Amino acid sequence: MRLRKVKGAKEAIANSNYVIADFKKNRGQYEKIFNNNNALHLEIGTGKGKFIIENATLNPHINYIGIEKYDSVLIRAIEKLDNVILNNLRFINEDAINIAEIFDKEIDTLYLNFSDPWPKNRHEHRRLTSPEFLKRYESIFKVNKHIIMKTDNRQLFEYSLKSLTDNGYKIENLSLDLHKDNDKLNIMTEYEEKFSKKGSTIYRVEVKK
Amino acid sequence: MRLRKVKGAKEAIANSNYVIADFKKNRGQYEKIFNNNNALHLEIGTGKGKFIIENATLNPHINYIGIEKYDSVLIRAIEKLDNVILNNLRFINEDAINIAEIFDKEIDTLYLNFSDPWPKNRHEHRRLTSPEFLKRYESIFKVNKHIIMKTDNRQLFEYSLKSLTDNGYKIENLSLDLHKDNDKLNIMTEYEEKFSKKGSTIYRVEVKK
Repeated sequence: MRLRKVKGAKEAIANSNYVIADFKKNRGQYEKIFNNNNALHLEIGTGKGKFIIENATLNPHINYIGIEKYDSVLIRAIEKLDNVILNNLRFINEDAINIAEIFDKEIDTLYLNFSDPWPKNRHEHRRLTSPEFLKRYESIFKVNKHIIMKTDNRQLFEYSLKSLTDNGYKIENLSLDLHKDNDKLNIMTEYEEKFSKKGSTIYRVEVKK
Repeated sequence: MRLRKVKGAKEAIANSNYVIADFKKNRGQYEKIFNNNNALHLEIGTGKGKFIIENATLNPHINYIGIEKYDSVLIRAIEKLDNVILNNLRFINEDAINIAEIFDKEIDTLYLNFSDPWPKNRHEHRRLTSPEFLKRYESIFKVNKHIIMKTDNRQLFEYSLKSLTDNGYKIENLSLDLHKDNDKLNIMTEYEEKFSKKGSTIYRVEVKK
């Protein structure tokens, strides 16, 4: 993905109360940040934030953290919150490759929404459902491991179903055409809204381990 | 499925050299029928036979057995072979619910093509990928268990991916849009040909245990 630089993004992120800057210091103690021990849901690649902001608004008794490596994208999420107070939402501006250094046995549910498909074989290890990434997630989950994935990329989804089940995850829920299922509870990402309007099939799987 | 009765089907099937009538007597010794110990591939619900006849024609060193419970359908497969000699192909006119009484540790690969989806929950046990059926298959496989499934029924496919992986099968190959993959080796069933022309998405999975 080529991104346009957004002037002032770094500063705005650094100054936002929604962003956890010293995340490595908080490893294993995010309860302190939220000041409660509610369930903690994590979205990797949170993008412009529509999905996680709507979730946090609808579910005040769940804490949400969104990780996004591009400041020029994360700034769009921050801007959405200019006049909103959501005590159960935070962002981290970091590459998910370092996820195991950020969290320690404290995540209940992990969302992977419309992740980069990295279609070339030699980039397989960069896919967020590769064995390499699944290994990184092992230590971030509280007790049960729970991943919910959505994508419109068929090849990534085929790959992920194999990788997840090969690595011990059990399929809890599966939809090979989410928007035809007419799930009223589905919260769409920006990307999902755009591409489903164009007729793309949206896939969703929920797995547990 | 409501089927039209075909006059003379029973007799024609009884008289065909392609049909194994005393199948329970041959349990565990189908090598004798084929007079060799080549791999044995089984199709449950073989229908009008296009898939298995094309396979048997292309792969003379693999033995094929097609099971079909409806004589009014199986007769169409038999008729296709009126002027053809295929020593590596046989049919059995029987309900697959009795599969464990028909075979004993002798199947290498099982094909489930466009099986009845049995959409109602109370009919789940009739689906050919239900835990009940997977249990029946346990004793029919030689050593490794190998199932290849195709369907255009999304709900049946979602169900089957969960059921197969829940019951210890590993995904080897998966396509969520087989005909877009342009697989030159794909042999179509009658049903597949008809419904893919109408634009149905065809799903395929190959699993091993």
